[in-house]
Amino acid sequence: MVQIAQPASTPASAPAPGEATRAVMLPERLVLRRGGVLEQVEIAYETWGELSAAADNAVLVFTGLSPGPHAASSPADPSAGWWEYMIGPGKPIDSERHFIICVNSLGSCFGSTGPSSVNPATGKPYRLDFPELTIEDIAAATHAALRELGIDRLHTAVGASLGGMSALAYAMMFPAAVQRLVVVSAAVHATTFAIADRALQREIIRSDPDWRGGDYPLDRPPLNGLRLARKLGLMSYRSAVEWQHRFGRERMSVETPDEPFGMEFQIESYLEANARKFMRVFDANSYLYLSRAMDWFDAAVHGESLSAAMGRIEAREALVIGVRSDFLFPVAQQRELAELLSGAGCEVELAELDSVQGHDAFLVDKERFAPCMRRFFDAADAR
Amino acid sequence: MVQIAQPASTPASAPAPGEATRAVMLPERLVLRRGGVLEQVEIAYETWGELSAAADNAVLVFTGLSPGPHAASSPADPSAGWWEYMIGPGKPIDSERHFIICVNSLGSCFGSTGPSSVNPATGKPYRLDFPELTIEDIAAATHAALRELGIDRLHTAVGASLGGMSALAYAMMFPAAVQRLVVVSAAVHATTFAIADRALQREIIRSDPDWRGGDYPLDRPPLNGLRLARKLGLMSYRSAVEWQHRFGRERMSVETPDEPFGMEFQIESYLEANARKFMRVFDANSYLYLSRAMDWFDAAVHGESLSAAMGRIEAREALVIGVRSDFLFPVAQQRELAELLSGAGCEVELAELDSVQGHDAFLVDKERFAPCMRRFFDAADAR
Repeated sequence: MVQIAQPASTPASAPAPGEATRAVMLPERLVLRRGGVLEQVEIAYETWGELSAAADNAVLVFTGLSPGPHAASSPADPSAGWWEYMIGPGKPIDSERHFIICVNSLGSCFGSTGPSSVNPATGKPYRLDFPELTIEDIAAATHAALRELGIDRLHTAVGASLGGMSALAYAMMFPAAVQRLVVVSAAVHATTFAIADRALQREIIRSDPDWRGGDYPLDRPPLNGLRLARKLGLMSYRSAVEWQHRFGRERMSVETPDEPFGMEFQIESYLEANARKFMRVFDANSYLYLSRAMDWFDAAVHGESLSAAMGRIEAREALVIGVRSDFLFPVAQQRELAELLSGAGCEVELAELDSVQGHDAFLVDKERFAPCMRRFFDAADAR
Repeated sequence: MVQIAQPASTPASAPAPGEATRAVMLPERLVLRRGGVLEQVEIAYETWGELSAAADNAVLVFTGLSPGPHAASSPADPSAGWWEYMIGPGKPIDSERHFIICVNSLGSCFGSTGPSSVNPATGKPYRLDFPELTIEDIAAATHAALRELGIDRLHTAVGASLGGMSALAYAMMFPAAVQRLVVVSAAVHATTFAIADRALQREIIRSDPDWRGGDYPLDRPPLNGLRLARKLGLMSYRSAVEWQHRFGRERMSVETPDEPFGMEFQIESYLEANARKFMRVFDANSYLYLSRAMDWFDAAVHGESLSAAMGRIEAREALVIGVRSDFLFPVAQQRELAELLSGAGCEVELAELDSVQGHDAFLVDKERFAPCMRRFFDAADAR
């Protein structure tokens, strides 16, 4: 029943999945929320720890827009993952107690079926023939993948940013499958500002002539558009205070800019380095699909009202974490979420953290995030 | 001595100056701060009210990055100006008492000499042969223009945003020429975040193939780059709270986007409409020069230290206005500025306003800005 394989549907020129990445083929075709159909769906994932005999210790970790399933190192892939401090033996999400599984979102490009995957009907990459993607589809594909892996019920569903939206969708759509919920720097829907920010990122990618209306060869992607969009993204992921302290008005060590109006300040070279790294590993069309899915997400559509929708959730314990310097998902949104979960009968801990790193603080502020997460899991397991 | 004429050096395809715009040719060539030289400099301006016989009622208004000198309507041009509620008969800056002059910044494109002006040495537009431009050059050219117009000393120098930086530079460079200072939503230098934001805008313009390394024909400018850069600018000019209230998550009335990943939310069409209007009237190279000048500006270079530099200022009364929702020039910067001016012996009123419109509040929040400005000018004239 369980199919595990190295992901096969990814063309050679797309990003290579990590050494520890495995994939599961869903047993049935997937009908997406906005009407599209995927005849074959593969979901890539990595795991840490062992599933208990009762299969009651599984912790699902959804990712944000850009990371793959390599959330932490493991014997199969000792390279550091994107949430290295959080996941592993003795870590806050402890692989000695839990079976932790991190999935690559449907529509992404690290082994799961997405716009750069081969469409079995044509033998060519989907590109823009990939159907319209929603957060709910990410949740549904993940749910089907977990069932294939023999996991019917989660100890906890965890997600940050887009991953937090995915975790909320999962808990609303499959209420019996989620005992606990951890939502970090996310919300029941995006703010107007966040929508404007992401819409502009998408428009920047689409404006790159190399995007070719989505039909770029996978080995000649719209690198410049993706690079510029990533810089704009980064501006909303971190915080002005952090940059002021780290970079101030320091100039780059190279004295003369090599092009008119070229880079001059250290902050520019920081953004450039990050964006160059990103543009080489992320598929532009995946970015467009996932980015738009975040704008579309609105928990309220799952019920007569927002509180009715949230009332579907059966998880009885939740941790909601927000960061005061986050202006992409401002902390008022996590307060709102905590109240809604509480109104739905969930015992909620709301943690408002003073990290200076803005929206991305969960990736880097181990000092504040690790104790917060550890406390939640320790308390859950002590009951 | 006074030369007044319709601006002559602007090519036909560049933005046309307004009906009330006049221009003064500087009597001498201008040596710019970073070493460049402009052999001929014209400065465009508009005026309201009459200069008193003692020439002691002149109020200079510097503009932000994008506006021209048409700050308010007048008999010669009855169309509304960009600060219509602020300037005119009986308005807070009262043309019945004051001779108000608004200048088009050196390097801009509304009649003053800038990158789209004809280089007398070649008979062609300067484009990137225009010398490196600083805020101090804008102040120096303006000072020379005012002297040509017979104004040696200002009742008050006023400026918002880039204009506030220009006013500060003016007061440091020509201390005896400024009796009072009004600085709105500006600072002694830009934050790291603001630099990153503007550097990305410039890179977006430069990435438009139609920019052609700055050598675009003036009738075929890099419209798409300018349009996208303007959208990014707008995201830093307004505030998330304002947009949430005005647009929320409302969709556009057109149901089906006409292109893949096209516009869908009302906030997108608002940005698009503004950006399209802007791209048709503003020269892309002017944008690059003025934008970079803001990043370069640092009041501290005018003395051994920042406070020594500010100590040069001889204005004895100042009004500093900041807006709590401004994240481009956050209110902490206006607090810092007020303290520095106070330390320099100036009597300072610091107004921290609760406008929701962010950095651009001075353009639209008449309710809060008008009384604040009126009080300052009434008090000054009552002494």
